[in-house]
Amino acid sequence: MSKLGGALQTCNARETLKTMTASHALPAVLDRIDNDLDASLDRLFALLRIQSVSTDPAFAPQCRKAAEHVAADLKSLGFDVSVRPTEGHPVVIGKSASGRSGNGKTSSGGQAPRVLFYGHYDVQPVDPLDLWHTPPFEPRIETLPGGRKIIVARGACDDKGQAMTFVEACRAFKAVTGALPLDITLLIEGEEECGSKHLFGFVRDNAEELKRDLALVCDTGMWDAETPSITTSLRGLVYEEVRLTCADRDLHSGLFGGAARNPIHVLVEILSDLHKPDGSVAIPGFYDGVHELPDDIKADLAGLGLTAEKFLGPIGLQVPAGEQGRMLIEQISTRPTAEVNGIIGGYTGEGAKTVIPAKAMAKVSFRLVGAQDPAKIRSNFRDFVRARVPVDCAVEFGNFASSPAFEVAFDSTALIKARTALGEEWGKRAVTVGGGGSIPIVGDFKTVLGMDTLMVGFALDDDRVHSPNEKYDLKCFHKGIRSWARILAALAD
Amino acid sequence: MSKLGGALQTCNARETLKTMTASHALPAVLDRIDNDLDASLDRLFALLRIQSVSTDPAFAPQCRKAAEHVAADLKSLGFDVSVRPTEGHPVVIGKSASGRSGNGKTSSGGQAPRVLFYGHYDVQPVDPLDLWHTPPFEPRIETLPGGRKIIVARGACDDKGQAMTFVEACRAFKAVTGALPLDITLLIEGEEECGSKHLFGFVRDNAEELKRDLALVCDTGMWDAETPSITTSLRGLVYEEVRLTCADRDLHSGLFGGAARNPIHVLVEILSDLHKPDGSVAIPGFYDGVHELPDDIKADLAGLGLTAEKFLGPIGLQVPAGEQGRMLIEQISTRPTAEVNGIIGGYTGEGAKTVIPAKAMAKVSFRLVGAQDPAKIRSNFRDFVRARVPVDCAVEFGNFASSPAFEVAFDSTALIKARTALGEEWGKRAVTVGGGGSIPIVGDFKTVLGMDTLMVGFALDDDRVHSPNEKYDLKCFHKGIRSWARILAALAD
Repeated sequence: MSKLGGALQTCNARETLKTMTASHALPAVLDRIDNDLDASLDRLFALLRIQSVSTDPAFAPQCRKAAEHVAADLKSLGFDVSVRPTEGHPVVIGKSASGRSGNGKTSSGGQAPRVLFYGHYDVQPVDPLDLWHTPPFEPRIETLPGGRKIIVARGACDDKGQAMTFVEACRAFKAVTGALPLDITLLIEGEEECGSKHLFGFVRDNAEELKRDLALVCDTGMWDAETPSITTSLRGLVYEEVRLTCADRDLHSGLFGGAARNPIHVLVEILSDLHKPDGSVAIPGFYDGVHELPDDIKADLAGLGLTAEKFLGPIGLQVPAGEQGRMLIEQISTRPTAEVNGIIGGYTGEGAKTVIPAKAMAKVSFRLVGAQDPAKIRSNFRDFVRARVPVDCAVEFGNFASSPAFEVAFDSTALIKARTALGEEWGKRAVTVGGGGSIPIVGDFKTVLGMDTLMVGFALDDDRVHSPNEKYDLKCFHKGIRSWARILAALAD
Repeated sequence: MSKLGGALQTCNARETLKTMTASHALPAVLDRIDNDLDASLDRLFALLRIQSVSTDPAFAPQCRKAAEHVAADLKSLGFDVSVRPTEGHPVVIGKSASGRSGNGKTSSGGQAPRVLFYGHYDVQPVDPLDLWHTPPFEPRIETLPGGRKIIVARGACDDKGQAMTFVEACRAFKAVTGALPLDITLLIEGEEECGSKHLFGFVRDNAEELKRDLALVCDTGMWDAETPSITTSLRGLVYEEVRLTCADRDLHSGLFGGAARNPIHVLVEILSDLHKPDGSVAIPGFYDGVHELPDDIKADLAGLGLTAEKFLGPIGLQVPAGEQGRMLIEQISTRPTAEVNGIIGGYTGEGAKTVIPAKAMAKVSFRLVGAQDPAKIRSNFRDFVRARVPVDCAVEFGNFASSPAFEVAFDSTALIKARTALGEEWGKRAVTVGGGGSIPIVGDFKTVLGMDTLMVGFALDDDRVHSPNEKYDLKCFHKGIRSWARILAALAD
């Protein structure tokens, strides 16, 4: 490979490669990535030095500086770049004129997907600053005992380091073949760490421009340091508030105790009915649209060996509390749940007060999977509650979230290609996992832009994301770039 | 009677009466009460003018003044009086040298009870002052449409007016017969409206001096404007706090939902088990020591016709929520209860937070009746909870109250005599009712001083006790004095 890499330095060789498929160019591209790693690191370090903390208005100029830095870098790769204002921090858009194949055909004669890559240039605040061993915006390489090398800085992983794995893969293709292997649009925002609050409107307002065939995101993690992972589903969310009122005032339990309806009693009756003894959710129709995983995927998940000891041990627990007969990894990712997130009623201060309260309230949320319909879940839940509200008790509802689950079909061509590519890079079959939580923008890519998202990332559990001394393994950065090169080549061919 | 009353004004007649039984003297005593009503009112008004608000330290001198005023009045009746300091407001103690019968024998040859009368000279604060139609410490008689006359002032009922009914009855006996009909001790405290906090210690410290055969309290109400009432029982109280802890930190429900034990779920399961579908309490052994009411008492209670409309309507409710098959009046007075007085866990602010909390807490109290043992109830409750706490959940308990129920035996001689006396005064059988709440000092009279308490009072539901424009019906004051005269005579004979 290194020999071919040398040959590619000549203009003629580059011309030749322009007519090659992306897969044919891949060995040279990977070689280029290896040889260019120091320069890649220099470029990452330059970005890491910009203090683009998005939550603190004092850092707004640095956020703009980061946006402009990214824009200039993408421009140098031939992207048509714009720094687009929002009411918050700007969004950087980079568009390749067209795919390298010109007509966008894959080697098999299919249409190569046009992709939208999403990442963010903003970072979390750095406090408590005194817990950092070195200044958070002075990136450095540290060699751990045993020889493992890590990049230490705020944003080293989340998401500057991860986003740059994709940009560097593009750069290598451009350097080797003179073009990108696909029609690529980059969307790099600056408000992910403060809720992406202006991104949703931006995506809606620019839907035509951003609509591609597939979205790629590099903001997730590896299964472990050896095992690559693709997040193929995210659970949806329905978040409800239940407010009960009985008497028209708080009552003294000495005077009224035994005769007056207590809304806390009503509430605990309802909430205790939410789950069956086997841990499943008792709301009628709740499992409509929940599909069983294919056997091979289930076997893959079982093979990961996620034990209660590993997952629950670090938070002081021992026994999975969800649906009986389901693996822990299913419980937290591919099965729907109902959780009471908050409850309050009556006297909750120090000591005793013999009150029968007028009101009681609970917040209840549901994690959705598959084709569960948020509107139907909400409506069935409300019916379930109403059926249990006795006379002398009034119920009101509030709703704070209602988003469907997101999932990529396991037989999706893009998923299969990406999975193979990752397996080749890491020497180990990539796992497909479900994300337990929601990434709202991925939902919008689906609902607003009509496209699936492949979430591929190289973060490790010990990266201290959002905490002092954030790091990114040098190996993850390096092999992350190589992984994207392989994925882009696979998608193009 | 008025003729006899006139005759009693002579010294000779008084000498004659000294050798009469109290019952023989009663007609003359009642006559004296009728004729002396204006003077009785003057004396009550003098006491009502003293601004003895106990909760506000600024009124401490007025509290002392009220104590001294009461002391001087009792001294004028021949009581051996002392104003006893406490760490708060003073306690007035008045002791008759001995009963009028000298040997304390009743006409039937039994021992006449030595009685301890309890009342309080302090009053509630008067704010909001602007809602008073006339100044709260300028007592006046108001005639309502229809001719009903009321005494309006702070303390008119609670408890200056009520306490003075007893003092005026003593005064009439003294005036007519030259002596009191019984050995009487008065304990008039000044901190009832701020929790009687120094009275408990005072009673313990002076137990030998205060220990009598029977306590009398005039701080309760009539059943209605025509029906006298004796409170013969008070419910006891056990007040527990349950604190559950699962994980060692709050968790994100996206990451851990479905696998991590949620302490709110555990708590609502436990609390929803507290009651059976018939409204009874499900804790094993809970009803040990709970006795059925005698049939005649039950019939009396049924005859009162306390409907849900009357009792629950004013607070916006319709249907009694307690034990099925029990009258509402039983549910609130003579049956034990379990109430969740407070509950809290997780996120309870505005909007949504997808947390699985580490902790959840509830406050649970039990109203006890009959011979229910507070220590056993507490221990059984804790066992009940522990049996429902799953793995990965730790429970801690707190206790804030533990007092047994208080009840006077329905066949108690004193109760039967008082009931007859009230029936004769009001022309209607007196009802015996259970108080739903606790009056802690009555519990101490039983546990520390070993004596029962008869609670007889003449307050009406519309007396606006603790509120602006507090009042006491003139009829209640007048017939209240007459009632005590009859009760004292009955107890003496």
